[in-house]
Amino acid sequence: MENHLPVLIVGSMALDSVRTPVGAVQDALGGAADYSGVAASFFSPVQLVGVVGGDFPQAHLDFLASRGIDLAGVQTVAEGKTFRWAGYYDFDLNIAHTLDTQLNVFADFQPSLPEAYKKAKYVFLANIDPELQLQVLNQVESPLLTVCDTMNFWIEGKREALVEVLKRVDIAFMNDAEARQLTGQLSVIKAAKALQAMGPKTVIIKKGEHGALLFSGSTHFAAPSYPLEEIADPTGAGDSFAGGFIGYVASRNDQSVATLKKAVVYGSVMASYNVEDFSLNRLRTLTGDDIANRYRAFKEIAYFEALDDASV
Amino acid sequence: MENHLPVLIVGSMALDSVRTPVGAVQDALGGAADYSGVAASFFSPVQLVGVVGGDFPQAHLDFLASRGIDLAGVQTVAEGKTFRWAGYYDFDLNIAHTLDTQLNVFADFQPSLPEAYKKAKYVFLANIDPELQLQVLNQVESPLLTVCDTMNFWIEGKREALVEVLKRVDIAFMNDAEARQLTGQLSVIKAAKALQAMGPKTVIIKKGEHGALLFSGSTHFAAPSYPLEEIADPTGAGDSFAGGFIGYVASRNDQSVATLKKAVVYGSVMASYNVEDFSLNRLRTLTGDDIANRYRAFKEIAYFEALDDASV
Repeated sequence: MENHLPVLIVGSMALDSVRTPVGAVQDALGGAADYSGVAASFFSPVQLVGVVGGDFPQAHLDFLASRGIDLAGVQTVAEGKTFRWAGYYDFDLNIAHTLDTQLNVFADFQPSLPEAYKKAKYVFLANIDPELQLQVLNQVESPLLTVCDTMNFWIEGKREALVEVLKRVDIAFMNDAEARQLTGQLSVIKAAKALQAMGPKTVIIKKGEHGALLFSGSTHFAAPSYPLEEIADPTGAGDSFAGGFIGYVASRNDQSVATLKKAVVYGSVMASYNVEDFSLNRLRTLTGDDIANRYRAFKEIAYFEALDDASV
Repeated sequence: MENHLPVLIVGSMALDSVRTPVGAVQDALGGAADYSGVAASFFSPVQLVGVVGGDFPQAHLDFLASRGIDLAGVQTVAEGKTFRWAGYYDFDLNIAHTLDTQLNVFADFQPSLPEAYKKAKYVFLANIDPELQLQVLNQVESPLLTVCDTMNFWIEGKREALVEVLKRVDIAFMNDAEARQLTGQLSVIKAAKALQAMGPKTVIIKKGEHGALLFSGSTHFAAPSYPLEEIADPTGAGDSFAGGFIGYVASRNDQSVATLKKAVVYGSVMASYNVEDFSLNRLRTLTGDDIANRYRAFKEIAYFEALDDASV
């Protein structure tokens, strides 16, 4: 991996307090940058841009560093407090109920890239204020591939900036409800095409338990979800999905549709592992063999001819 | 196809009046037996069991016969009227709004199999009263494969009979909401396993725009849906899906998981064509080449390695 191109990731770094029907955690490592960064780190080196307060446990920084993640872009506001989110999920794990959001140091976050990061070829703008996503794009010199994620909050509150981001990125991630909300199209197929018309050549629609869809040019690809009987904590599923995706693409240094399809599956693999435990705990013990095994399992789930006989 | 084993199909034969955002039809050919029978007829001979009134147009019977469907099991109540359903779909095509249901001759339907039908090896019990499904099962002598469909109406009103049907069939079709409703499990994965525990070795969950899931023994398979930008009329999608499925299985005279997976895809192909036009109109002009082309398209949608390189 030493010769691989790094992935630049910018997003939230958080301490999450989460309760689900299976259990609960308090002030656990969370945030879109942490989830996507750790997921990407299984495939490529990662350069992280984010902000934490003086209360951010050194153990979390150590863990991120242990994943080979470059933390030169992480600002620490010693006198401030880290972004905190508290919420719970009932039996419908698709719906996160927010109990409390404390932006803290994240409220004044101005992403500033270290010199080395400005040469990043692969850039993932995780779910943050689209105005900050634009600031990052303005600092990157000549990226090969730019990818953004977003959420309903920005679609409602910062639509103009988000539209500007979409004009400038190569790939946009969105869940199906967000794609419908942004485009006003009820059909997810039409919504994805409308998104493509807004800028990104490739659109990836996350559908949770229904898998994910890739629209790239005129190519359509559908990845199933991995059939988990028990989900411990859905927090970070979309972030680890995107992280696995961009990490794999960067590791191949290739943007062909064939590579993007596999990347969607690797993203699905990372998301499926991530939700097996709270916070990023499952990724702490995950191995390359685990990833390869589940990638193979996705083939068993999706293929309908014998694996060695793919002729119609 | 002359040497193929026939599929016995029992269900409703109807005249549907349907309005969607795309258009409308009045007293058009409909009913679960008609949709599934015609879809199955592209793969295997079909023996149909149902009832119509004296008002059922001869042209519809001629069309069914032109598909090679054996109509010896269709009862005609000359003085009665055919089952009629009237409804509409708004922009959310997943929700059928019923305007009027006239059971007519269907209210007193007692399926009675012609002698030849009793030797049927492949049996599809389309969505009708589970007590009638049981009557059919009691008349079939030694089937190789029995398959049932159902709906929320019977889950609520005839639960005991439905549970008895499930004990006796090999494969059960249900949509995801019905599977959850019947089993009380919110997770579709758990719901499918609970259904398997009730009897059928194989459970197929229809998820509309999200495709279909096959659970057979410990095998899990997920088929995507075909990405249609415009759906003319979703009526009969589930029936044509089931018809394509059982028709393909019977044509192979094989119940291996490999065959069941392909059958789910052929079912998806038939459903995707069916919704392109009102009533069964699209199936009237469908060709074997159309089916083969879309089957190949499903591979492009679902496979994430080059088709000729299925190694990980």
